[in-house]
Amino acid sequence: MEDAEGTQDAPLGRISAPGRLAGPGEGIGLDELALAARNHGLPLEALRYDVTPPGLHYVLVHYDIPAVEAEGWRLTVRGRVRTPLTLDLAALRSYEPVTRRVTMECAGNGRARLSPRPVSQPWLVEAVGTAEWTGVPLQVLLAEAGVAADAVEAVFTGVDHGVERGVEQDYRRSLPLAVASGHDPEVLVAYAMNGSPLPPQHGRPVRLVVPGWYGMAQVKWLRDITLTATAFTGFQQTVAYRYGQSRDDPGEPVTRIAPRALMIPPGFPDFMSRARAVRPGTVELEGRAWSGYAPVVRVEVSTDDGLTWHDADLAAPDTEHPWAWRHWRTTWTATPGTHVLSARATDAEDRTQPLAQPWNRGGFGNNLVQRVPVLCLEPD
Amino acid sequence: MEDAEGTQDAPLGRISAPGRLAGPGEGIGLDELALAARNHGLPLEALRYDVTPPGLHYVLVHYDIPAVEAEGWRLTVRGRVRTPLTLDLAALRSYEPVTRRVTMECAGNGRARLSPRPVSQPWLVEAVGTAEWTGVPLQVLLAEAGVAADAVEAVFTGVDHGVERGVEQDYRRSLPLAVASGHDPEVLVAYAMNGSPLPPQHGRPVRLVVPGWYGMAQVKWLRDITLTATAFTGFQQTVAYRYGQSRDDPGEPVTRIAPRALMIPPGFPDFMSRARAVRPGTVELEGRAWSGYAPVVRVEVSTDDGLTWHDADLAAPDTEHPWAWRHWRTTWTATPGTHVLSARATDAEDRTQPLAQPWNRGGFGNNLVQRVPVLCLEPD
Repeated sequence: MEDAEGTQDAPLGRISAPGRLAGPGEGIGLDELALAARNHGLPLEALRYDVTPPGLHYVLVHYDIPAVEAEGWRLTVRGRVRTPLTLDLAALRSYEPVTRRVTMECAGNGRARLSPRPVSQPWLVEAVGTAEWTGVPLQVLLAEAGVAADAVEAVFTGVDHGVERGVEQDYRRSLPLAVASGHDPEVLVAYAMNGSPLPPQHGRPVRLVVPGWYGMAQVKWLRDITLTATAFTGFQQTVAYRYGQSRDDPGEPVTRIAPRALMIPPGFPDFMSRARAVRPGTVELEGRAWSGYAPVVRVEVSTDDGLTWHDADLAAPDTEHPWAWRHWRTTWTATPGTHVLSARATDAEDRTQPLAQPWNRGGFGNNLVQRVPVLCLEPD
Repeated sequence: MEDAEGTQDAPLGRISAPGRLAGPGEGIGLDELALAARNHGLPLEALRYDVTPPGLHYVLVHYDIPAVEAEGWRLTVRGRVRTPLTLDLAALRSYEPVTRRVTMECAGNGRARLSPRPVSQPWLVEAVGTAEWTGVPLQVLLAEAGVAADAVEAVFTGVDHGVERGVEQDYRRSLPLAVASGHDPEVLVAYAMNGSPLPPQHGRPVRLVVPGWYGMAQVKWLRDITLTATAFTGFQQTVAYRYGQSRDDPGEPVTRIAPRALMIPPGFPDFMSRARAVRPGTVELEGRAWSGYAPVVRVEVSTDDGLTWHDADLAAPDTEHPWAWRHWRTTWTATPGTHVLSARATDAEDRTQPLAQPWNRGGFGNNLVQRVPVLCLEPD
């Protein structure tokens, strides 16, 4: 397959440096800030919505949001298939539509709190959102194209174009064939978000949705699906998005979402510190929890900075939306002074969240327990 | 009027510090980053849209996005009026609706590049957007309520609640009566954005829209309008949003938007540095320009870091949308090497943009000329 790795262009090294770690005490740089100003997380109070309203769902765009008009757009399905397909949006819409509620999270969520900090999109804890995606199951398109017996992967290419660590590329990722053609999770080729055409920043006109996987798999502005007889070795697959400990350590690939619970910070915030204040008495605590491996079966809450934990009330399993976050709630009797609140999710495969974060060079798969410092005021 | 200044609460000083300036070489802090991760700017390639799609328009929220349901919401109009009003959303919608296309910009845009840097929401240059707002002219509501002869200001209160520099408050701002009841610009009490109910982060269910003014005047989650016989002295009016040089200098109030032109960065970006690469030859340059004082009448472009300038083609005056940005375009013949591109707007009152930025302690009203470094590659 052509251009799988992009073009390593020496002159581009003048604007495109190798990955690096921040030095001890090094503040966030203007490069990281430029990413933070473009992309955005979920303001945590928006955890109140079952389905995240437009503009509050996290967004990460590697390069620029491309200008793709639905009229000229085509999706090709080719490579190791019997019948290559070329579909326009009307053709895609002519298939029986499927809608799935999916919680999506960026693989780099939490990166900005790591030490040393990998210099990249500096997420704190908010790179998540839940949307209802409508489209065609990928397995339907693959069945129509007829996958050849020697195919092992499906490679997905977006329209978005840029350079990363010296490698000029269209954004491109693959999935093992068993995942691409699977039905649990069922991968979608999606053209609507929350009942409307995809917003430009979410992949207009068409994107991939891979329930349970981190965001890097959810290729936006999708233009091509190529079935290959060998494993894809492109930049976003073999260089980026690996759990490596050093530049020389290839590490395991980043795939599914590790379990996480997040709390809506209670009370009211200070504008600048974002620290919280509450009044003494009963305080409702609530939030969401999710895992890309298995349903969340337990959420525990601590109000003493992780010393003791108690079970929160977890919403009943939602069989209609198995890939969406679950709501949890509990109450806390706040007493004057400072407190640190936390929540911790455990899934049905007994995966849970660490209190001390393992580290990897890309800052991926972080699911350190959230800490919410709260000042409880004296009674009025 | 009660609670105009909020409550200065000493215990809240534990989470709410005075404003400060960053030290020499001090990187962006985690507090500034937390604001940048919640709020977001316009990705500059979205300058391509006449009207900014949902989720791409800049957002600044001082405290939390409040959960306000349309059902329980009421707007009161009271104080120095003959007939106080209490309106629900249906009542507001029963007035003849007006739709206005308005370019809005945060007063703190550009703050993160100032030296020394005021520590606050760290915008680079992207805190802008244009939307079509639908609602009722404020002058219609004021006429119905009957403004008393001694009224001098209208004070607007939002539902959003927090603490800022030790002052607990609902977000609250005033306008001089002449502005509040004026018809050029005509202030709107808006309940729709781009034809849909306001998104939560833009003030659901109702906000103020003051064409030509910076964002701090555009009170969101609006719940009360009180006419007063004396000037409002609340935190957001007399402490924040002033062009002061020091903590002791009250400075002039921040009001209208200074002229600015922004360019869509050409070519393609590096993921991390956001620096741009183009191929040699003709490159289309385009962008938008606006001013809150008077129509933009001229946009100049420089491709040599401000040494020489030439006029760009400016779209014809749009009499239907006098408060919206204007499109501009020009072409550039790119030659291999590094270049810095800039655009500069001038309005009909001969206000223009500086090449060296004046400084004020809040980092307000910045309109320094944008610099877009571009690497032009050798021919393929």
